[in-house]
Amino acid sequence: MKNYCFGIDVGGTSVKMGFFRTDGELLEKWEIPTRTENGGDAILPDIAASALAKLDARGIDKSEVTGMGIGIPGPINAAGVVPHTANLGWGYKEVTRELGELTGISSKGANDANVAALGEMWKGAAAGHKSGVMVTLGTGVGGGIIVDGKILAGANGAGGEIGHIHVDDHIPGACGCGNHGCLEQVASANGIVRLARWMAQERGELSTSLDMDSLNSKLLWDAVKSGDAFACEVAERFGYYLGLALANIATTVDPEVFIIGGGMSRAGEIILDYIQKYYVRYTFKACRGARFVLAKLGNDAGIYGSARLVIEG
Amino acid sequence: MKNYCFGIDVGGTSVKMGFFRTDGELLEKWEIPTRTENGGDAILPDIAASALAKLDARGIDKSEVTGMGIGIPGPINAAGVVPHTANLGWGYKEVTRELGELTGISSKGANDANVAALGEMWKGAAAGHKSGVMVTLGTGVGGGIIVDGKILAGANGAGGEIGHIHVDDHIPGACGCGNHGCLEQVASANGIVRLARWMAQERGELSTSLDMDSLNSKLLWDAVKSGDAFACEVAERFGYYLGLALANIATTVDPEVFIIGGGMSRAGEIILDYIQKYYVRYTFKACRGARFVLAKLGNDAGIYGSARLVIEG
Repeated sequence: MKNYCFGIDVGGTSVKMGFFRTDGELLEKWEIPTRTENGGDAILPDIAASALAKLDARGIDKSEVTGMGIGIPGPINAAGVVPHTANLGWGYKEVTRELGELTGISSKGANDANVAALGEMWKGAAAGHKSGVMVTLGTGVGGGIIVDGKILAGANGAGGEIGHIHVDDHIPGACGCGNHGCLEQVASANGIVRLARWMAQERGELSTSLDMDSLNSKLLWDAVKSGDAFACEVAERFGYYLGLALANIATTVDPEVFIIGGGMSRAGEIILDYIQKYYVRYTFKACRGARFVLAKLGNDAGIYGSARLVIEG
Repeated sequence: MKNYCFGIDVGGTSVKMGFFRTDGELLEKWEIPTRTENGGDAILPDIAASALAKLDARGIDKSEVTGMGIGIPGPINAAGVVPHTANLGWGYKEVTRELGELTGISSKGANDANVAALGEMWKGAAAGHKSGVMVTLGTGVGGGIIVDGKILAGANGAGGEIGHIHVDDHIPGACGCGNHGCLEQVASANGIVRLARWMAQERGELSTSLDMDSLNSKLLWDAVKSGDAFACEVAERFGYYLGLALANIATTVDPEVFIIGGGMSRAGEIILDYIQKYYVRYTFKACRGARFVLAKLGNDAGIYGSARLVIEG
C-alpha cells in the first residue's frame, strides 16, 4: 500500500485540492483558480502542475502516491469521461485519462455531490455507517447516495439527482432542468425564498412581517427561530416537501442515515426537526428509524470523498 | 467451480425449487407444499429433504453443489436472518444457517421480490443489463432494485419496497402497511379496482358500463382495450401514479431498465404505454431513455434469482 493520495474537488470558480495520507489524514489543503476560458483547456494541466509541485516541495516521489481522485460538477461515467459540463467550459472530456497522462498518477473521477456524500460517510457526520444519502441544500438541491460504502452513480450518472424529484404539480414556474414541480424549486436556499413568495401570494394579504424583496434563506430561518408565524408556515411546507421526498427515497434505497449539508444547513438542527416530522409520517415503517445528521466537513467534504475514491478498492 | 446449485423460492402455500447448472441452465423444477403449521417448523427440513433426495435420484454428490439460494416472502438480512415472517409462521429464524446445517450445503438468502428482480436481470427480460428496477403488480406492488448486478437490500431489508412510496394524500383508506397514500393502494391488481371505485364515486354518476361489484383488474384492462372511456380514465390515473413513482425512483437510482411483472402485467404492452407517458413527463432528463420491458420468467423468476445468489461471488 502506498502512503499518499490526492483528493480534488473542481468547482466553477476554484479547485480545492487536498493531499492525504492513505489512512485518511488530511496533510494539507489549498485552492487554485478554475480557468474556464478557452473551453476550460487549462483546468487539468493546472491541477496536474499544482499536484506535482506539492510533491516536489515535500520531497515525495510519485511512486509513493496511490492515486488522484477528482470530483466534477456534472455527470461523469465509470470510465472517467465527462460528456459535457457547461460551467467548466468543457465539451467531451476524458478527465481521468488526461489527468493520468499529465501526472503519471492513476486517477478516478465522480460527480461532486457524490464525492461529498462519500466524504461525509468516510470522515464526516456519518462516519461508521455503510449506507447513507446526503442532501446538499445550496443554490440548488444536490444529492449523493452511498450503498455499502460505494457511490450509486447510476446508468447515466444521474444517481442521487434528488433535487429533481417531482413533489408538486402546482409549483409556479419551471426548474432549471426544464421540468415542473422539482424539489429543488422549493427546498434549496433559493427555493425556500421562492416558496415563501408563492405562499405569500396565495394568501393574498400582508401575512408576514418579512420583507419579501430582501428575503434570503438565512433571514427566513432566523424568522422561524424568532417565532414568526408565516416563516414557520413556510418551514412546515419546506419540511413537507423535503421530508416526503426523503421518505420515498428511503422506501427505495433504505439508507442508515441522511446527511443534510450545504449552505442552508447552517440554520442548524431546527431544519432536521421540520424534515423529520414529515419523513416519519410518510416513509415505510421499517425505515422510520433512519438517523438524520447535519454535515460536518463543510467545503472539505469533496476533497475527502475524492481521496476516498482512490483508497481501498 | 462446482457444477450445480439450487434456487428456492418460498411462498405462502408452496415452495418452488429449481436445480441448476452453474452456467445458468435450469435442469429441473418442482414444487413442495409450504407447511406453515407449528410455527413453520417443517419448512426448512422439507426443503432440505427434497433437495437431498433430488441429488440422490440424479447420483450427484453434494460436493458438486456450489450452494443453495433461497428467496423469502419478507425481510431477511445479510446474515440470512429473518426477524419475523407472518405468512410462514416464523418468528426469529436463522434461515441460511439452519438450511446449511440441514443439507451440508452453503446457503444465501434474500427477499422474494429482490430475487425475482435478480432472476429477470440474469436470464429474463433484462438480461444483459447491469442495473434495473423490477415492479411486481400482483395482489400488492412489490419491487426489487439491482445495481451493478447486485440486490440493493437496504439497511433494514426494505430496499425496493416501492409499493409503499407515497403518491397521493387523498387516496381513501389505509394501506396494509398502516400508512396512507401508498402506491400499492392504487397500482396493484387490487389497487386499480379500488382506484376505479374511488373515481366512480368522485364522479357521482353512472359514468361507466363497468359493473363495479364484479370488477377485477383483468376486466378493467379488457375494457381499456375495447375503448371504454371510464376504464381509459382509470388507466390514465394508474399510469400517472406508477409513472410518477418510477420517475422519482429513476431520479434516485438511475437504472438502465424497468421490468414490469406480476399477474396484472399479463394485460401486456398497453400497461407500459400508460406508465411511460407519465414517466417521461416527470423524470430527470438524463433518465428519460430508460427501457421498459415486461417480465418474461413469470413464476420462475424467483428460482432463477435465488440460484444467482450463489453463483459467482
